[in-house]
Amino acid sequence: MNAQDDTSKQITSVDVAKLAGVSRSAVSRTFTPGASVAQETREKVLKAADALGYRVNQLARSLTNKRSDLVGIVAANMDNPFRTEQIEQISRKLMEQNFRPILMPAESADDPSRIIGMLLEYSVSGVIVTSDTPPEAICQECVSLGVPVVLVNKRKIGATVDRVLMDNLKCGQLAAQALYEKGCRNVAIISANVPSYSLQVRGDAFKRSCLEMGLQPVTGFAADFQDYNGGAHAAAQLLASGRPFDGLFCVTDFMALGALDHLRLSGAPPVPERMQVIGCDDIRQAAWQGYNLTTIRQDTAHLAEAVIEALLNRFSKPNAPATTKTLDVSLIERGTTR
Amino acid sequence: MNAQDDTSKQITSVDVAKLAGVSRSAVSRTFTPGASVAQETREKVLKAADALGYRVNQLARSLTNKRSDLVGIVAANMDNPFRTEQIEQISRKLMEQNFRPILMPAESADDPSRIIGMLLEYSVSGVIVTSDTPPEAICQECVSLGVPVVLVNKRKIGATVDRVLMDNLKCGQLAAQALYEKGCRNVAIISANVPSYSLQVRGDAFKRSCLEMGLQPVTGFAADFQDYNGGAHAAAQLLASGRPFDGLFCVTDFMALGALDHLRLSGAPPVPERMQVIGCDDIRQAAWQGYNLTTIRQDTAHLAEAVIEALLNRFSKPNAPATTKTLDVSLIERGTTR
Repeated sequence: MNAQDDTSKQITSVDVAKLAGVSRSAVSRTFTPGASVAQETREKVLKAADALGYRVNQLARSLTNKRSDLVGIVAANMDNPFRTEQIEQISRKLMEQNFRPILMPAESADDPSRIIGMLLEYSVSGVIVTSDTPPEAICQECVSLGVPVVLVNKRKIGATVDRVLMDNLKCGQLAAQALYEKGCRNVAIISANVPSYSLQVRGDAFKRSCLEMGLQPVTGFAADFQDYNGGAHAAAQLLASGRPFDGLFCVTDFMALGALDHLRLSGAPPVPERMQVIGCDDIRQAAWQGYNLTTIRQDTAHLAEAVIEALLNRFSKPNAPATTKTLDVSLIERGTTR
Repeated sequence: MNAQDDTSKQITSVDVAKLAGVSRSAVSRTFTPGASVAQETREKVLKAADALGYRVNQLARSLTNKRSDLVGIVAANMDNPFRTEQIEQISRKLMEQNFRPILMPAESADDPSRIIGMLLEYSVSGVIVTSDTPPEAICQECVSLGVPVVLVNKRKIGATVDRVLMDNLKCGQLAAQALYEKGCRNVAIISANVPSYSLQVRGDAFKRSCLEMGLQPVTGFAADFQDYNGGAHAAAQLLASGRPFDGLFCVTDFMALGALDHLRLSGAPPVPERMQVIGCDDIRQAAWQGYNLTTIRQDTAHLAEAVIEALLNRFSKPNAPATTKTLDVSLIERGTTR
């Protein structure tokens, strides 16, 4: 990599095309997000660009194109390993398409409109929201500015705001069926007192499926926080309630790990012999030997691909009706069920 | 938040200043990274900007100022919870200073020069590297373009590349002293076969401190990966070696969790009664009831503040000699030591 010491001699795409032995259009396409270019051509171009110290001025280009290659990611709950896996996957897929991810961490107290507003100042090409559902007004502002918004695991808003969902309904159904088939007759659920669309759907689907299979009213406790400590605290409440249970569904793995540790350390009936536990998400920690948690798997790589696809489709058809892509989930059996 | 439907009537900073009842300079300072403005003034400006639907065009501004408000973060090993805590903290601090973080996830196979090169195309104001130490050439290119580079927990490179370090030397020393004082006489270490400056320094300091206190040659195993599975695998090797040990230092908490689970599940001498374990980093999981790991704490919030401070100082003094800020660490005693 050679630094450009002589800034008076600006390296242009023509120089790169000449050295690489390709057309200038091939150089342009190599540096354009989402544009198609043969792998071999791409490599030639990158090698030549590297040798010459060629750097596209993406900001200048953005002003000309009225679109930057920046894509905003609004993310809350970054303490949840599932969230960071999502962010990592989405960022990587964006980079593969020559976009650059701007990460905006949000706390639940933050105003999503303000955070998305900050992104608009950078003429982002698109906004991906993995935090709480943003107000419709700011999404409409994005759409009116020609900036697509893709919502991940959020409820429907607006007529042209695309969504990518994991099949949260199936998450709850699979958990209920698995516990039933494995012999549980007194089931419980740990959810969270947070305004989360996906957790709500999972929990409701679980309860409905249990009732349909004839299981009696499910004992449920909602944690104040959807994290490890929230799960541990809810498990403590569940045990203190005195209602016996032999099967437990936690609406996230993150909470399930806290619940499992509490059950193990508080002298509750042993897992999985007398109590079976199922989580949801399949975060990396679920597979750790110390937990070995049976769970419902969401594939974060597929999810990231679907998000990028929704973004690219929206660029080509800005006024198409809103789409909802629902991704399949599956039961991963490990050591917390029999 | 009102969308600007009538784009012909562009809202300017003058309109915002008038509505807010402040000077135009106050409006400008409110939207300038690192600029000082009274909290009360700032709130007035933001409220007025919001009511008018005013959006700074940061990209146009960047071209005028020859500097954008974008700061790149190059991050590897995003599966390590310590890394994601760092990224979250650094992103938040950047946002507080009106910068916007561009996140570039890197895999160990990725060329750091190429990733930093991508950032330069966006006229980033600065680059923060938390992944592997980048080659000196690309850092020099950044410096020659007036883009400060701040290295987090990396070895020294170049004359004007600032570094922020946790006191890795003290990490190793504290661990050795604590194990010694708690009665361990046969100590072992789990490190990783990866080119990591901080892990190297921690491990060397631990071994040296042990020797100084008269502890006999430390049994060590290096994992191929600095993650949970690497730690579990190294613990298995350590047990298989047949060399007895009663104290174990793992150079990261992430590996310590894997080692702890392996020790617990393989019928090794119980922790902490017959074997004491100390990790390093104090990731959130270390405090989980199921682990309750004694560790050496790095404060990621302080680290993030120091990184931003280094960046701001470098803006004001581009040619000052390289600085190294070393942050203190402390022993957090939990249940894996007596």
